[in-house]
Amino acid sequence: MSTTTPRTDQPARHAPPGPAGLGVGMRLSLHPHTDDFVDVILGALEDVEAAGLTDGLVVETDEVSTYVGATEAPAEQRLAAYLTTLVTAASRRCSGGHVVAHVLLSRGCPGEVSCDLATTGLPHADPVDLPPSGLPAIAQWSLYPLLDGDGGGGDHMAPIEEAIAAARRSGVATAPRHYATRLAGDLSQVVATAVDAWARVGATVPRVVTHLTLSLGSPSVTEETR
Amino acid sequence: MSTTTPRTDQPARHAPPGPAGLGVGMRLSLHPHTDDFVDVILGALEDVEAAGLTDGLVVETDEVSTYVGATEAPAEQRLAAYLTTLVTAASRRCSGGHVVAHVLLSRGCPGEVSCDLATTGLPHADPVDLPPSGLPAIAQWSLYPLLDGDGGGGDHMAPIEEAIAAARRSGVATAPRHYATRLAGDLSQVVATAVDAWARVGATVPRVVTHLTLSLGSPSVTEETR
Repeated sequence: MSTTTPRTDQPARHAPPGPAGLGVGMRLSLHPHTDDFVDVILGALEDVEAAGLTDGLVVETDEVSTYVGATEAPAEQRLAAYLTTLVTAASRRCSGGHVVAHVLLSRGCPGEVSCDLATTGLPHADPVDLPPSGLPAIAQWSLYPLLDGDGGGGDHMAPIEEAIAAARRSGVATAPRHYATRLAGDLSQVVATAVDAWARVGATVPRVVTHLTLSLGSPSVTEETR
Repeated sequence: MSTTTPRTDQPARHAPPGPAGLGVGMRLSLHPHTDDFVDVILGALEDVEAAGLTDGLVVETDEVSTYVGATEAPAEQRLAAYLTTLVTAASRRCSGGHVVAHVLLSRGCPGEVSCDLATTGLPHADPVDLPPSGLPAIAQWSLYPLLDGDGGGGDHMAPIEEAIAAARRSGVATAPRHYATRLAGDLSQVVATAVDAWARVGATVPRVVTHLTLSLGSPSVTEETR
C-alpha cells in the first residue's frame, strides 16, 4: 500500500492511517445448504487458519457472523485471500453443493473508528492478486460511499457508476439488478472485482462499505443462466 | 403514509412520490441450513403468496435472491409483513432448524430511480404493525444514509446514531458489533425495528439503504447468549 507523495510547498504530510487505524475489515456469514452445515463451517474456518491466512488479521466468530479485521498491510490482499479460501474450503467440504457467503467490507471513518485525515490523506491499495479458484460464482454486489453533506463536493452515485463500469469492462459485471449489480466468473475474479472497487473508492472517499452475496453451486443456475 | 401540509405563502407542493416512484423495496435471500433447502424456500414463497401478502408488491426471484418491490402504500407495512411471514414459514418448514435471511431494504433517489423531490418533499411512513411471530431472532443490522457532499448539510453518522439509540430504548438493540448493531427479540420486533428506522431516516434523507441479517434456530445460541 503506497502513501501519497508530499508536495514541497505544503506542510509535511504524515503517512495515512494503517488498516487498523482505518477500521479496514469485513463481516461474513457462510451458509452451506446442508444438514452438516456446522461441520462444514467449522472445518472451513480451520482450513483457512491452517493455511496461514489469518496472519495480519483478527478473526472473531459470533452467533451470526465472523468479523475479520485487518491489522497489517496489505489489508485488502489478506481479506480477499481469506474470503476466497474460506468459501472454496466450504464448497469442497460440502462436495460442491450450494454454498452462499454474505460479506460486508468496511473501511474508513467516522464509523468503526475516528480518524483525522486532514494531514494524511487516504491510502491507495494495489489490486489484489488471487490465484483462480476453479469455482464458478455468481454474486450480487452493492457499494455505499458514505459521504457527508458538508460541501466537500461529490455525489454518492459517481463512484458507484465508475465501479460498475470498470467491472463491466473486465467482463465480471454482467447485469444490473434492483439495488445491486450481478457479477459472474471464477470466485477469485468476483471477489477481486468487489474488493478492488471498494479499495479504489476508499482512496478518495473516507468511508466506504460494500456488500457482496456470493453464490456457488446453486441449483437455480443452468448452462443458459451461467 | 401522510403528506406534508403546504404552507400558504409557498408554491403549492405536490404529493411526495409513491413507493414505486421512490423505488421502495427489498432484496432478500433465504438460507435454510438443510439438505431440503429447495423445498423449504419454494414452499415458504408459496405460503406467503397463499396468505395474500404479495398484494401491492412485485416479487421476482432470480438465481441469487428475491426482489420485492412495493407498488402500493403502505409500502413498509407490506414489505415487513412479507418478510416476517416468509421467514416464519421457512422456519416452520424446516422444523425450527437454522434459517438465515439476508435482507437489503432500499428507498429513494438517485439510484434505483430518478426523482425530483424539490417540490414534493419526502413521505412519512407510519410505524409497521406486525403480530408477534413467536420466534426468537438475532440479527446484525447496518444502516446507510447515502448523502451527497453538496453542502445540503447533515452527516451520515447522525441518522445512524439516532436509529441505534431508538432501538436501544426499545430494548431490541442489544450490543454493537464491528460494522453493525446486534438486535434480538421476537422476529416481528426485530424486523419492525429495522424497517421503521429505515423509513424514519427516509423521511429526511432522500436515499437510504439498510441491511439486515436475520438468524433463527442457530445452534450457536444458548440460554446464556440469547
